[in-house]
Amino acid sequence: MKLLEEYIKREGTVKPGNILKVDSFINQQLDVRLFVQLAREFARIFKGVNPTKILTIEASGIGIACVTALEFDVPVIYAKKNRSANRSEDVFSAEVTSYTHGRKYEITISKEFISPDDRILLIDDFLATGSALRGLIELVNNSGAELLGAGIVIEKAFQTGGSELRGRGIRVESLARISAMSVENGVEFCD
Amino acid sequence: MKLLEEYIKREGTVKPGNILKVDSFINQQLDVRLFVQLAREFARIFKGVNPTKILTIEASGIGIACVTALEFDVPVIYAKKNRSANRSEDVFSAEVTSYTHGRKYEITISKEFISPDDRILLIDDFLATGSALRGLIELVNNSGAELLGAGIVIEKAFQTGGSELRGRGIRVESLARISAMSVENGVEFCD
Repeated sequence: MKLLEEYIKREGTVKPGNILKVDSFINQQLDVRLFVQLAREFARIFKGVNPTKILTIEASGIGIACVTALEFDVPVIYAKKNRSANRSEDVFSAEVTSYTHGRKYEITISKEFISPDDRILLIDDFLATGSALRGLIELVNNSGAELLGAGIVIEKAFQTGGSELRGRGIRVESLARISAMSVENGVEFCD
Repeated sequence: MKLLEEYIKREGTVKPGNILKVDSFINQQLDVRLFVQLAREFARIFKGVNPTKILTIEASGIGIACVTALEFDVPVIYAKKNRSANRSEDVFSAEVTSYTHGRKYEITISKEFISPDDRILLIDDFLATGSALRGLIELVNNSGAELLGAGIVIEKAFQTGGSELRGRGIRVESLARISAMSVENGVEFCD
């Protein structure tokens, strides 16, 4: 998506350790005018899949998920992150390893809000190693709901998450796909 | 706001310890169709105040803040919660005590995203003791930005946060104000 690539070129900065900092429009400051454009693009790409709910993960996924949910006219549910394992019988849970922070955490969602009748579209801001997305997929699978696919704002296509998930037959659609990045040369996109 | 009070009556449950559970539309599942109505009400109440940014706190405030920001056509910034004190010179920080979880944490916002030129409207889902809101106000004051007021979805008016902040001259507008609640009798609203 051209507009998003321009935002990333203009406002993103690459930090050592393959960190792409996009705090000014996606992470800490949320450019809702851009979000509307991203949401319309997700709606176009996933036209006809008819989700009943959009699932994301706290915290920075929530904004883009909400604006996208307005396009589909369905509720958002978001998985919560917990430092300690939540063994409650009231939740579905999965383990996620944070690439940025280098630690493991548990994600959970209340069983009240996801059932075999649901058709779930995943929305998240980043896809790199795919750990968060694998965790969300595990939650959906455990619930018995149908997984329609995942809409990602920025994919680091030089990492393995996207290809591994597509290899499992999961529909993963990313609005910007980064083929390479470095502190020196900035960001390059896939064709 | 009548529609919101109906939602709370119908879907909210009161748990021991003065906890109001509204997970099905505000906290874990986000009813974005309702959020649009709440956002329009905030836009009506705060018509003419002309914020440059909306400030909220992760995680559950982000959704309602984003939908409200669409009404005002301004970006959202959100304060991050940290377990440990962040002494970085790049952030404004304040200490917050969580009523629900009974622990202290630090909230921070990058200095990049808030400046003396900003006119800040706070949006959050809950106001009870007011600790989170006091923390957000402290961030705004530290930044030198102008504080326009706070829009709250649900205020527990039987707790002291709202009256204390209004007593300091801060404009606090809540869409639903709960006068009393109990496990036995549910929720009652202020007139």
